[in-house]
Amino acid sequence: MIALSAVPNTYRLYHYPLDPHSRRVRLTLAEKGIVCDLAIERPWEPSADLIACNPSGEVPVLVVTDGKHSHVLADVCAVCEYIEETHPATQLLGKDPLARAEVRRLVGWFERKFHGEVTSFLLGEKALKRLMGTGEPDSVLIRTGYHNIHGHLDYIGWLAERRNGLAGGELTFADLAAAAQLSVIDYLGDVPWNSHIAAKEWYARIKSRPAFRGLLGDHIAGFPPPRHYADLDF
Amino acid sequence: MIALSAVPNTYRLYHYPLDPHSRRVRLTLAEKGIVCDLAIERPWEPSADLIACNPSGEVPVLVVTDGKHSHVLADVCAVCEYIEETHPATQLLGKDPLARAEVRRLVGWFERKFHGEVTSFLLGEKALKRLMGTGEPDSVLIRTGYHNIHGHLDYIGWLAERRNGLAGGELTFADLAAAAQLSVIDYLGDVPWNSHIAAKEWYARIKSRPAFRGLLGDHIAGFPPPRHYADLDF
Repeated sequence: MIALSAVPNTYRLYHYPLDPHSRRVRLTLAEKGIVCDLAIERPWEPSADLIACNPSGEVPVLVVTDGKHSHVLADVCAVCEYIEETHPATQLLGKDPLARAEVRRLVGWFERKFHGEVTSFLLGEKALKRLMGTGEPDSVLIRTGYHNIHGHLDYIGWLAERRNGLAGGELTFADLAAAAQLSVIDYLGDVPWNSHIAAKEWYARIKSRPAFRGLLGDHIAGFPPPRHYADLDF
Repeated sequence: MIALSAVPNTYRLYHYPLDPHSRRVRLTLAEKGIVCDLAIERPWEPSADLIACNPSGEVPVLVVTDGKHSHVLADVCAVCEYIEETHPATQLLGKDPLARAEVRRLVGWFERKFHGEVTSFLLGEKALKRLMGTGEPDSVLIRTGYHNIHGHLDYIGWLAERRNGLAGGELTFADLAAAAQLSVIDYLGDVPWNSHIAAKEWYARIKSRPAFRGLLGDHIAGFPPPRHYADLDF
């Protein structure tokens, strides 16, 4: 008996290269081996296409087309959980409810606490204000971000010394969420790697994965990354 | 053949009555019919018990004891997804990956956008500053919260007029996340219900569910709720 082949789904991701939430979705798609059309958006000037999909204009937005219909998915957690559910061969969430709870706890930690205490200050003040033309960086907020990153790198190092992946034995969304945040700060040249060797060794492992290559090729016009950004031996 | 009865799990939730994330967990436990020991925390003075479970001192924290071991779960999404996975008889996430993506999108909307644009300003300035003794409320931030709540109530009303539950046909985490945020603002007496009738009708339905009774009995010492707070015909 010959199985009828269904029309394969196609995927289009609206993303912004320096948005860490978009980066977690890109890493997830790449780890799962999903081919996806990438449409770059600038969140402060969303395209008509993006607005038609998501009136809030926020990225990431994943459009899944199944031959008949297009389905619009928004929110980094909603998109990543959807990809995990529909492409279970490579698991990124953990094998049982307790393991998944630990992965989701750490995802929340990095996407809420790390983002709020580090990424929003450094990315917002050093890059987005300049790219958006909305004024001078606030040096107090930048210093706050620099101050806060040390505790987070200590925590990552502490986890990495006890576990293979940050949430346990395997690579999970916890690693991808943490690496997505850090990769944006690294694009700004601002991660004090040499004061945090355990975190650096964990990041070097994640950075050398084939799924990371897309991120290392990012280049924002007028805002190039430092030389070490794409270097696997940084 | 007689099944051996396992020792049932016991549950203890560390929560703060005016914390909307804690409230979503309490609603989830009640909708699932899970008996749970509730330990009230004041997030700005976490108890030694809570610190031992979660060094960040943040609530909600759920401790699950299975007879042999205690497992500590933190982060509102991690806790609620864990409860959903381990108590699937009453489903709160949706029946297929696309439905679940819509539920999770709306959960993110309410717990990130609504919280950031409304709850954090009104709860933070009008209640937490007074309870913590950290100064006078900032009237600009309060006005910002009052301004922002209208768009969110319009959106809730728009969804509620098209769907039975906010994410689709059934009650889901989207309804519980939205109601948890609004119930905190309602405790402050600050929801302009009469300008948003569709949202009010939706909230009246959620508020009348048996699972809501615990929240309606909350009473913060020195900060009582307005009379309509516990009234089902508000």
